[in-house]
Amino acid sequence: MTKLTELRKPYLLFLGDAIKATDAKTAAGIAYWRPDDCLGQFRINENTVSLDLADMSVKEAAAAGCGTFIVGLAPVGGGFPESWVSICVEVLEAGMDIASGLHTRIGEIPDIAAAAERTGGLVVDVRTPPEGLPCGTGRKRRGKRLLSVGTDCCVGKMYSTLAIDAEMRRRGINSTFRATGQTGILIQGSGIAVDAVVSDFLSGATEVLSPENTDDHWDVIEGQGSLFHPAYAGVSLGLLHGAQADALVLCHELGRLSVDGDYADFAIPPLDEAITMNLSLASRTNKDVKLVGLSLNSSNLSEDEALITMAELEDIHKVPVVDPVRTGVAKLIDFLEKNT
Amino acid sequence: MTKLTELRKPYLLFLGDAIKATDAKTAAGIAYWRPDDCLGQFRINENTVSLDLADMSVKEAAAAGCGTFIVGLAPVGGGFPESWVSICVEVLEAGMDIASGLHTRIGEIPDIAAAAERTGGLVVDVRTPPEGLPCGTGRKRRGKRLLSVGTDCCVGKMYSTLAIDAEMRRRGINSTFRATGQTGILIQGSGIAVDAVVSDFLSGATEVLSPENTDDHWDVIEGQGSLFHPAYAGVSLGLLHGAQADALVLCHELGRLSVDGDYADFAIPPLDEAITMNLSLASRTNKDVKLVGLSLNSSNLSEDEALITMAELEDIHKVPVVDPVRTGVAKLIDFLEKNT
Repeated sequence: MTKLTELRKPYLLFLGDAIKATDAKTAAGIAYWRPDDCLGQFRINENTVSLDLADMSVKEAAAAGCGTFIVGLAPVGGGFPESWVSICVEVLEAGMDIASGLHTRIGEIPDIAAAAERTGGLVVDVRTPPEGLPCGTGRKRRGKRLLSVGTDCCVGKMYSTLAIDAEMRRRGINSTFRATGQTGILIQGSGIAVDAVVSDFLSGATEVLSPENTDDHWDVIEGQGSLFHPAYAGVSLGLLHGAQADALVLCHELGRLSVDGDYADFAIPPLDEAITMNLSLASRTNKDVKLVGLSLNSSNLSEDEALITMAELEDIHKVPVVDPVRTGVAKLIDFLEKNT
Repeated sequence: MTKLTELRKPYLLFLGDAIKATDAKTAAGIAYWRPDDCLGQFRINENTVSLDLADMSVKEAAAAGCGTFIVGLAPVGGGFPESWVSICVEVLEAGMDIASGLHTRIGEIPDIAAAAERTGGLVVDVRTPPEGLPCGTGRKRRGKRLLSVGTDCCVGKMYSTLAIDAEMRRRGINSTFRATGQTGILIQGSGIAVDAVVSDFLSGATEVLSPENTDDHWDVIEGQGSLFHPAYAGVSLGLLHGAQADALVLCHELGRLSVDGDYADFAIPPLDEAITMNLSLASRTNKDVKLVGLSLNSSNLSEDEALITMAELEDIHKVPVVDPVRTGVAKLIDFLEKNT
């Protein structure tokens, strides 16, 4: 069975030369969802954005037991500057690993590769799937699984599943967040970037990501894309079949009319169509799959408008409707505990 | 725009040490569908199976203007024997290219790689997708497209599309077979093995495979897998969206009850469910998509049983029902010409 890499904790978050908080989104996500895993932050200079973590040099972090240096952001100018290469070499020399979510495979930069070789440190490119993934089997695995699906890309699937996992664990439910994209992988410390997996192994990758578990355990699996996306629907379907989900949560951005990015000709599917299609296809590998909630991004609406819309959608779809930022996801977990 | 490799014709078909015709299926397929592209066959010895082509040495084939040596079969014992390596080196030295459909990447065998380097000959591994494939755009391309879809893997999708393309060309319809698997690619001389494409680029690969064309031109696209396959459905959906098909042909094997291979727990979906699901998802990138026929493998049935079943299915589904081996596909093309 393919074994997934687990990043060594705690982390030193590299913030580089990011001036705006949005340029350090990945690091901010890690600090928000996994504060206990974050030992400190490393800023190039005092103009760099801060996440209100302890500022640490590489040496200080290593001395404090830091396991992994997290490179979650590209430099403002593009490329991977020589000064950052030197920092990565210092990190490895200090006995730490590096994890990167960048498109550039920094483990292939000669000086970094040589330092990794010399020190035995790992340089983990979280966009690169593990080797030797199998084809899917479709065979039922023990344990329970929740998957977020969406009406589009970038509608809050990662945020929703992280919030659901957090609320489950707060209640003492045995659950694990299963990451399928680079940010989620850096937050959780393991996972598979499914969109980078060779098509034949999509469902198999999802089976590896979410292995057999105890009967009371929930895997909370981060969804990707949408069955209605003209470019990425294949990823979504492979994930849907491989997940064998008992519970689906449909994620949607209120007010979004067309597919994000360069797909303005493609309307967002109606919610009932998205629900029916996802349940229908998911039932192929788990005939008991059910919808347990809608998770909305309602940031385009005022608080009042949002709450009214959510109440209306609850009436229509007979499942809890939440906005994880505005309302939290407690109502959704209440429903899940009663109905699965 | 990514450019697809076109194999140089005509071919010398390598039959190796295959004793049984079934071991030389790929070469037999090329000889059957593209006789004019086959200059001759190369057999290791007189016990090797024959396709009734002219026996030729590498030198004779080169002198007769052969472009590519086709390695479509693995040796009986497995591995890639030293004697075959020598033959491949001789092929390259004679100025020919090599195309292989094997899992082993023969272009990476040191002696073959060195000979290719020395001679400038190509060693084309048709299972390896081209580099630099883009993400799908979903943007409408000119020209018309037919895609075969299936209730399972191995139900005749390649055979059906090859037969449809052949019948179209016989009638003077401007059409091109677009191959998506290794055998189809060796038959056509170009194509993309979509199951080997990284998931993110599935629809984009299909768009590259079937580029804009004249309004009267048909791309006849080989389908893969099935939307109901627990391991490979993602491939099928990426292909379905990328193809923007005007016309779908559903392929099915009469009498098959469960999914081929190690998936006995998975029933073959009912035909009406397979039709509805394929049309529904395909309509996302071409709202005018329609079903133009069922193409059956009826080899499990007697001639009488098969014809009765086909007539019944025509009554139910209101489209032509053919078995390309038993009845040909003329009826399907008649319907297509009237209805698209």
